[in-house]
Amino acid sequence: MATHLETLETPVPIVDLDRLTHNLDRMAAYATLHDLRLRPHVKTHKSTRIATEQLQRGAVGLTCATTRELEIMSEVCDDLLFAYPPVGAARLERLMRLPSSVRLTVAVDSAQSIPALAMAANLARRDVDVYVEVDLGMKRVGVTPEHSAVALARTVHTHAPLRFAGITFYPGHVRSRVEDQGDAVGALAQQVATLQELLLDAGLAPRVISGGSTPLAWRIHEVPGVTEVRPGTYVYNDRTTAGIGACDWEDCALTVLATVVSTAVPGQAVVDAGTKALAREPLRADGDGWASLLDRPEVVVTRMSEEHGVLDLSHTDWRPRVGDRVRLVPNHVCIVVQQFDEIVGIRGDYVETSWPVLARGRGAVDLQQDNAPRGPRAM
Amino acid sequence: MATHLETLETPVPIVDLDRLTHNLDRMAAYATLHDLRLRPHVKTHKSTRIATEQLQRGAVGLTCATTRELEIMSEVCDDLLFAYPPVGAARLERLMRLPSSVRLTVAVDSAQSIPALAMAANLARRDVDVYVEVDLGMKRVGVTPEHSAVALARTVHTHAPLRFAGITFYPGHVRSRVEDQGDAVGALAQQVATLQELLLDAGLAPRVISGGSTPLAWRIHEVPGVTEVRPGTYVYNDRTTAGIGACDWEDCALTVLATVVSTAVPGQAVVDAGTKALAREPLRADGDGWASLLDRPEVVVTRMSEEHGVLDLSHTDWRPRVGDRVRLVPNHVCIVVQQFDEIVGIRGDYVETSWPVLARGRGAVDLQQDNAPRGPRAM
Repeated sequence: MATHLETLETPVPIVDLDRLTHNLDRMAAYATLHDLRLRPHVKTHKSTRIATEQLQRGAVGLTCATTRELEIMSEVCDDLLFAYPPVGAARLERLMRLPSSVRLTVAVDSAQSIPALAMAANLARRDVDVYVEVDLGMKRVGVTPEHSAVALARTVHTHAPLRFAGITFYPGHVRSRVEDQGDAVGALAQQVATLQELLLDAGLAPRVISGGSTPLAWRIHEVPGVTEVRPGTYVYNDRTTAGIGACDWEDCALTVLATVVSTAVPGQAVVDAGTKALAREPLRADGDGWASLLDRPEVVVTRMSEEHGVLDLSHTDWRPRVGDRVRLVPNHVCIVVQQFDEIVGIRGDYVETSWPVLARGRGAVDLQQDNAPRGPRAM
Repeated sequence: MATHLETLETPVPIVDLDRLTHNLDRMAAYATLHDLRLRPHVKTHKSTRIATEQLQRGAVGLTCATTRELEIMSEVCDDLLFAYPPVGAARLERLMRLPSSVRLTVAVDSAQSIPALAMAANLARRDVDVYVEVDLGMKRVGVTPEHSAVALARTVHTHAPLRFAGITFYPGHVRSRVEDQGDAVGALAQQVATLQELLLDAGLAPRVISGGSTPLAWRIHEVPGVTEVRPGTYVYNDRTTAGIGACDWEDCALTVLATVVSTAVPGQAVVDAGTKALAREPLRADGDGWASLLDRPEVVVTRMSEEHGVLDLSHTDWRPRVGDRVRLVPNHVCIVVQQFDEIVGIRGDYVETSWPVLARGRGAVDLQQDNAPRGPRAM
């Protein structure tokens, strides 16, 4: 017998499976249309099940930000990008313990990190592809383009078994609405063209130019030379993504189901989703609050404690009662998923399935090593 | 052989065991000195190990905010307060499945929630103590005091097997420095006195008046009538607690160990602790940023992404190198603990132990029912 949503204990993250499928299909179609390699970032879903759906729709590989994400995803994919600086002996060790069947690419932005990476790869007898990470305006990580990027590519090139494979950038500074991204896209195109020319002059033609993110996902094909995109958020979407027009409100696939637990203080209703469910992430679009109701976007969560969210009722005639259920669209879905161990998949008002958030957390995974000695272990 | 901190993969939450012991001892001594029943809130640590340390130091019971916290804590404690509105059938079911050996107290702030709670208690054949939750200024949950609190107490009283046990309040609106809390404490004292009088007049003398929180922990004895306190954060403390003077900087027991992964952008250093490690919680004290260095509090995290924290180097001569380790004091430790599955206990620079964050997440726990039928299950 199907389980009705009403019977679930709250707060619980629920995913509308039809919307999820639509989102997966739409991005796959975009990548195909523009001949872009789609290498989705798994940070949003941290789930092998959704990763498999992405691969079945033509994704060439996956992008990961943590060693645990790499380990978990190695069970379903043999082409993984570690889009994070490979710094620290413990991190390098875990990287190199990935199954040898995995083709591993690592992004680097410092010459200092290269000798240790090369030594670890050597010891593990594995080739490692390297993207040079460039900063095109976000000012987080990444060398500033032009000469220092070329110098870094050359350093990679001289550190076998590392192989210079291309450049990567994360345009996280572009936060405007999709229709207003023209200037930003033009600037990126200029930066990428300059960099390409310099690399060609240096005899270091990049095989891959990897860009993209969900906010810029639908216009990245306007940057000539980009061959690969790494969107993450698009599978579930969120209030920010809808707010900048990179998806429709109806494409928000993940909501947090919550219960009204108190109406004792006039003018507000308190739900059982606070920072430990919704996270305290700013809306990076017009508007305010921490989340809003799926079916009443004008009702927003204006205050939160760890397990309480306060709905402001001043812009609505709706008067909820204790026990009512609501579905909340969070500002930033990636942090919401991180709070939970399991996601519930729904169709209409019924639970159809659920899946674990396998790659959340940091713990090491006991990998099935395809290159491990078979038979009993030596004592 | 002891493991040195340097060998840990980052980001990782580490707890200085000497500081933890000091914090546990100090709060226990305060409660003893002022004859207050200490019922610590487990939301901060979500760990049976630390709960056991609290109980060994004289805590009369524990306070929980989620059903999972109750289930996990029922393994080490038989006196649990559910300081959360008991709304929703699924939540009530889990509440009533707690081992019958647990003396359960529930906080309520609405008459609507009482019939269902009483019915569930009846079906489970268990007595349930009830605190009436009053709002003394936080404006989150809780009835406004005086007449409506008395009415609610009377409703509880007429719904056996519920037993009116007392009143509870959470003074989360008091955020001033400890030395400036005089007026707020005076106002609380006035409110509590009025309420006590009304309840006495109604023949509903409260056995317990439960208040407190870490920010107000050291002055709650100045509110006459308060018999119980529920601080949580004090075990680990954080940047906000130190900022308002409710602990010393040296009492911050939990830090996030992180690694400098990039210095590519001038004027800053990027560490591998972002919102998925530090959480994006405001500093509720003077200052800015999301966290600061334990040994250089003037260096703060000014920007974050999911796995990146940006240290602003403009107020320091310190020039970190890629690979350097730092220890970060977060603004709000409770949300940090929620991001991780395991906490590492250190003494000096060496790892001494670790413990799981057992009560994080929402999943149901398979309880050892002391009232379950013994022997093989019926088929």
